[in-house]
Amino acid sequence: MPDMSRSLNIAVIPGDGIGREVVAQGLKVLSTVLPQDVKLETKEYDLGAQRWHRTGETLPDAELEALKGHDAILLGAIGDPSVPSGVLERGLLLKLRFAFDHYVNLRPSKLFPNTSTPLAGQPEIDFVVVREGTEGPYTGNGGSLRTGTPAEVATEVSLNTAYGVERVVRDAYERANSRPRKKLTLVHKNNVLVYAGHLWKNVFDAVGQEYPEVTTDYLHVDAATIFFVTQPERFDVIVTDNLFGDILTDLAAAVSGGIGLAASGNINPTGAFPSMFEPVHGSAPDIAGTGKADPTATVLSVALLLRHLGFEPEAVRIEEAVSADLAERDGSFRTTDEIGDALSVRVAS
Amino acid sequence: MPDMSRSLNIAVIPGDGIGREVVAQGLKVLSTVLPQDVKLETKEYDLGAQRWHRTGETLPDAELEALKGHDAILLGAIGDPSVPSGVLERGLLLKLRFAFDHYVNLRPSKLFPNTSTPLAGQPEIDFVVVREGTEGPYTGNGGSLRTGTPAEVATEVSLNTAYGVERVVRDAYERANSRPRKKLTLVHKNNVLVYAGHLWKNVFDAVGQEYPEVTTDYLHVDAATIFFVTQPERFDVIVTDNLFGDILTDLAAAVSGGIGLAASGNINPTGAFPSMFEPVHGSAPDIAGTGKADPTATVLSVALLLRHLGFEPEAVRIEEAVSADLAERDGSFRTTDEIGDALSVRVAS
Ligand SMILES: CC(C)[C@H](C(=O)O)[C@@H](O)C(=O)O
Ligand SMILES: CC(C)[C@H](C(=O)O)[C@@H](O)C(=O)O
Repeated sequence: MPDMSRSLNIAVIPGDGIGREVVAQGLKVLSTVLPQDVKLETKEYDLGAQRWHRTGETLPDAELEALKGHDAILLGAIGDPSVPSGVLERGLLLKLRFAFDHYVNLRPSKLFPNTSTPLAGQPEIDFVVVREGTEGPYTGNGGSLRTGTPAEVATEVSLNTAYGVERVVRDAYERANSRPRKKLTLVHKNNVLVYAGHLWKNVFDAVGQEYPEVTTDYLHVDAATIFFVTQPERFDVIVTDNLFGDILTDLAAAVSGGIGLAASGNINPTGAFPSMFEPVHGSAPDIAGTGKADPTATVLSVALLLRHLGFEPEAVRIEEAVSADLAERDGSFRTTDEIGDALSVRVAS
Repeated sequence: MPDMSRSLNIAVIPGDGIGREVVAQGLKVLSTVLPQDVKLETKEYDLGAQRWHRTGETLPDAELEALKGHDAILLGAIGDPSVPSGVLERGLLLKLRFAFDHYVNLRPSKLFPNTSTPLAGQPEIDFVVVREGTEGPYTGNGGSLRTGTPAEVATEVSLNTAYGVERVVRDAYERANSRPRKKLTLVHKNNVLVYAGHLWKNVFDAVGQEYPEVTTDYLHVDAATIFFVTQPERFDVIVTDNLFGDILTDLAAAVSGGIGLAASGNINPTGAFPSMFEPVHGSAPDIAGTGKADPTATVLSVALLLRHLGFEPEAVRIEEAVSADLAERDGSFRTTDEIGDALSVRVAS
């Protein structure tokens, strides 16, 4: 669609904290990298902590409806200490992921040359986590009884369906199959979470029959964290549930250059709803307004957005620009804006 | 009790794979370190994969009953690829933790000098994770519907009670209060798992009122993994739920010298049931019988056992022996037995 009409209609949710600052740089690079004949339209949505304080709203139906009309969504970051924990996360961010059926939460990790990692010996890191995005312990299915008393009981239910697991596992096999190493690792905890674990493992094995060229592996989530720091090179594509994926991708970001570089896509592969792209990092209120936020994760999220919409050469241009920019970083401080400018200049040339 | 009668009656569950090999070294060091006048009795329980293959039993009532009569339990490792995932874990290891109400799963992490870590720059690591051991997603509370069909639904329920959270949180405050830095970090995911998360946070804050000298902190589990690799020195005592504790302590082991050194205690602080001590590592069937297993984690678990039973000087002697042994390791290969012998010699002198 966007290819034929050569227009791009992006919803922008800057959100909270450094969200606005990094999104501005993402849009700067986006408008620079697009071919002249592609018409870029953006519409900003005022959602997040300030809106909630003002109106009590997190994501009203009218705006949810309006968001459906866009080709994709670019989101900065959501969350502020002034808002009770969970209100914006569940009322806005997770609501979008669920309403738009973003069942593939795509989180690539690549350690670029000249990028610092807490790991010794600069290991080779180049893997992608396919995190399920619409099930597991994220469904809000739980409750509490006798809340606030010494007799309180609180539950959280992880919901998993063959329907939901199969589609994300299939997506992961497709991705593994299209990469040179063709290796897919399932991460779960099927020795303890036996019901969900067996469902995941059975579906993983069954779908694997259709991909004879993909080498498969299984790891418990606890063991996976060990390999993330001792042998990250063993991973190519990882598929896992919503909560394990949340935990593993923060760790993956930490070892592959830091949270300032980690991009993500909340993808609806069917195209029924717009996909949403966002940096993995949060709103970091402590550094908001200081110019210290690194917009690179957002810029890389823009690359994922472009790839998803069929602008592959432009996505590659951004990734190469980031790679070149990182290679030339000498450790001296640059503001959010300066990094965005530098990347813009690179994608333009 | 054991102090007055000067006797020690330990149940030994070697288990599977390298379990038997490392437990033998743990017992060697235990018998050497004990004062002459303490009578050490051990009784071995044949539980694990072989027993299951032979009889179909994991932990019969009679043996569960017999285990109650011991001062403590020393366990090697449980699990074998020949047994369906979950059978031994839930039928034996977790059954013991639950039956004996091991609500404090204690897992110290210390990076000894001259010990290799995957982290650059040899950071200071000296923290202890107090992992809840009897609730959360480990209760086996879940199920599956239309199993094996495309319409399957599988659930896992995390159960959390004020009763269960309060006692483990209190234990963690006590430990933090008795350490020089007096810092306690709660790890959860209360922006998504809001019911369980709010229960944990509320109890954590309430109990904290009684410990004005303890500095507190809260981290989401995903953020905690980042700090484990970028700033492990920020942690002193961590308290967290069963599943997050499982994941975090494997990562903690990986960064603080490897899984060959990580000890743990499954503790019932009331003394109503015997506590159980085990290395964090698994049965590692791939290296069983090769002499490659490092028994140090088991030996350090013996130190935790001794401390729990009031043999503090002996516990310290073991820890100092391990520290000295590690300091003199030059990278050349030593068998399981040789390491056990070296540690025995050190604790004897
Ligand atoms: C903010 C939070 C709800 C979110 C999540 O847990 O998915 C974040 O950690 C992420 O990884 O995108
Ligand atoms: C073997 C398994 C059931 C166990 C757990 O998940 O608790 C292990 O990983 C551990 O950490 O002791």
